Amino acid sequence: MIAEILAVGTELLMGQIANTNAQYLSTRMAEIGVSVYHHTVVGDNLDRAKAALSLAKERGADIVLISGGLGPTQDDITRDVVASCLGKSMNISDEIVEHIRSLFTYRGREMPENNKRQAMVIEGATVLENPRGTAPGQYVAGDGVHYFLLPGPPTELKPMYEEQVLPILRRLQGEENLVFASRYLRTYGIGESAMEIKIQDIVDSQTNPTVAPYASEGEAMIRLTASAATEAEAQALITPVETAIRERIGKYIYGVDDETLPVKVGKLLRAKGQTMATAESCTGGMIATMITDVPGCSDIFWGSVVSYHNDVKHGVLGVEESVLREHGAVSSQCARQMAEGARRTTGADWAVSVTGIAGPGGGTKEKPVGLVFVGVAGPNGTTVEEYHLRGDRHQFRLRTAKVALYDLMQRIQNDSER
Amino acid sequence: MIAEILAVGTELLMGQIANTNAQYLSTRMAEIGVSVYHHTVVGDNLDRAKAALSLAKERGADIVLISGGLGPTQDDITRDVVASCLGKSMNISDEIVEHIRSLFTYRGREMPENNKRQAMVIEGATVLENPRGTAPGQYVAGDGVHYFLLPGPPTELKPMYEEQVLPILRRLQGEENLVFASRYLRTYGIGESAMEIKIQDIVDSQTNPTVAPYASEGEAMIRLTASAATEAEAQALITPVETAIRERIGKYIYGVDDETLPVKVGKLLRAKGQTMATAESCTGGMIATMITDVPGCSDIFWGSVVSYHNDVKHGVLGVEESVLREHGAVSSQCARQMAEGARRTTGADWAVSVTGIAGPGGGTKEKPVGLVFVGVAGPNGTTVEEYHLRGDRHQFRLRTAKVALYDLMQRIQNDSER
Repeated sequence: MIAEILAVGTELLMGQIANTNAQYLSTRMAEIGVSVYHHTVVGDNLDRAKAALSLAKERGADIVLISGGLGPTQDDITRDVVASCLGKSMNISDEIVEHIRSLFTYRGREMPENNKRQAMVIEGATVLENPRGTAPGQYVAGDGVHYFLLPGPPTELKPMYEEQVLPILRRLQGEENLVFASRYLRTYGIGESAMEIKIQDIVDSQTNPTVAPYASEGEAMIRLTASAATEAEAQALITPVETAIRERIGKYIYGVDDETLPVKVGKLLRAKGQTMATAESCTGGMIATMITDVPGCSDIFWGSVVSYHNDVKHGVLGVEESVLREHGAVSSQCARQMAEGARRTTGADWAVSVTGIAGPGGGTKEKPVGLVFVGVAGPNGTTVEEYHLRGDRHQFRLRTAKVALYDLMQRIQNDSER
Repeated sequence: MIAEILAVGTELLMGQIANTNAQYLSTRMAEIGVSVYHHTVVGDNLDRAKAALSLAKERGADIVLISGGLGPTQDDITRDVVASCLGKSMNISDEIVEHIRSLFTYRGREMPENNKRQAMVIEGATVLENPRGTAPGQYVAGDGVHYFLLPGPPTELKPMYEEQVLPILRRLQGEENLVFASRYLRTYGIGESAMEIKIQDIVDSQTNPTVAPYASEGEAMIRLTASAATEAEAQALITPVETAIRERIGKYIYGVDDETLPVKVGKLLRAKGQTMATAESCTGGMIATMITDVPGCSDIFWGSVVSYHNDVKHGVLGVEESVLREHGAVSSQCARQMAEGARRTTGADWAVSVTGIAGPGGGTKEKPVGLVFVGVAGPNGTTVEEYHLRGDRHQFRLRTAKVALYDLMQRIQNDSER
């Protein structure tokens, strides 16, 4: 099957937000073996949106995934566009009106009348519920094409896809008698091109499962996707290829599927009944934010001290004034005392610290932008590593947070209780 | 003038990378008043890329900005596609071959023969130099359309745009004798639909400047874009419309253009010579991360204590054990003592605290998921506000961080030194 991904929203064409939904939906299509040949973005313009929808059909799309344009204002045109292209009418759903009204009531506000637009349902459409927002999605088929109308905010679109769109696509695929299964192998410490060289022959020779490497901000991932008559058969096709890949680059693989670095660190700590804290300078709380983004982290995460100013490094974390004076805040000695101070202050079993120069300003010849020290203090002592990371301020902070989590993960894994 | 933004690359359709170039180029087009009606992504496929290019011309584009497909492999088809659509030939540039060869020599490597593909120049094209990579860009006009062939990597595309594409566009605009100016008004505390009701007549009646509202995660923004013979005249057209909007919803407007909440808080503090800290529970360091994402924040941001565990709330921030026992960690009393403790511990002039229930677990009937207390401690005392926010865990945390920054901003603004 072929899918086209269409985003509706003038804010995308103005560059105010990025079309992250296109990447997300593309990844999901690749996982289930649906081909994507085009992404299109149009503004909140009835004629251009209609033309884009017709074009998708002309270009042979079986599935059109549309994001955005489901809000309450006159600018939110997606419902009208799809109804018009299919020659179908729309009806207001009292049930949806009541749902939206209840959301406003919960916040102690009156529902503005224009919100009723969001309750217009295309004739014959299946309503896709949106517990995270006011605009429900819709699924409607016509002239052999399957249209999915999805909300623009990724936080609403993603769960709607997982919970409601994917089962419908699976059913449509089931009519083709094929089931797809995917597995992700998460690696750290090997670049995408180095990884590709090591497994290129496997990537090239495999057709079922297909093997695809991805890279993002210092991490690299390998996706294996197999199709078969049953889920179990598809999984059985994946296993030997996964084994072959692990024989080549197993030492770089730290997790599978949704096992990100913060998730993996949490699992390791939970298994040992231990806890952690962070002491952050240049990352400014980003490591703590990543850890606490995982639900249920409160049993392993005690807290963090973001010590941007030296007074906080000294006063809260107990970094010695002589260290700050003689070696500076960006030094191995300071990273060590920050980690040990955070461990002592919070009472956690482990603490990871970072101190570095994020830029764009503040670099010197001896301590250039990109220099960072990562300390890990644990039950059996403290280690410090020095790194030189590339990228702009945001990339540097993100890469620093990841390398710190990776160092912590390795220390926890290798720690034998003495 | 109208521009269309076309990206070429199968990796985009597979979801392996995001099309960040489209957002970047869209923002740049909005800045100079060039309208963008479509973004398109196609794979490394000659026929589909040719069709997309023809379509851009049919749809009335004066400018086509193409990213990607300029590399050395057979898959890199952009040069061939544009030459073919314009009916022009290509010639190899010895100068570019030598430039590429020198890059390989510098890295101590032989230039692979296929790299000569990158030196193919379309008849009549201007070469856009690429000091940051091997693939140069090209600018060529034909049949009234201006084509810009740009490299895919954003680190190469962005400087090429700034240094070489923008001057050409300015020259083309100069021939039209029109200059564009934009202003963004940032609001907080008013939903997009409520805002639209208040200013709909202004939005509808204005053509120069155009007025467009946008929303994202609790914030809403209004863009005004005007065109005139000079920058000053364009700005003069914007001013009265901005005034009219401010008369209606002025109390919700906190900043203009790039003045986000963290930027605004930083400016206010800097003007007063004051500093801040945060004490975070449910946001886990996100407020500190947002503040430190702004370069140069070290003169106003002292640090943060992420007190996830009650031991940290008590031990580091000094929250009384009786408060934790009798009122619980998610309480007005705890938020107050967290803010005051962070102010005392870090020595900053201001501290903002948050304690709430992010979910999905941990909610009770009395303290449901979404409940959050925000405390602000300053030179003239402490205030605490109670909020009930919607959204999944990630949305809740983001909205909590924003409401906390907004409360802090208001307190700083309204604070009269006594």
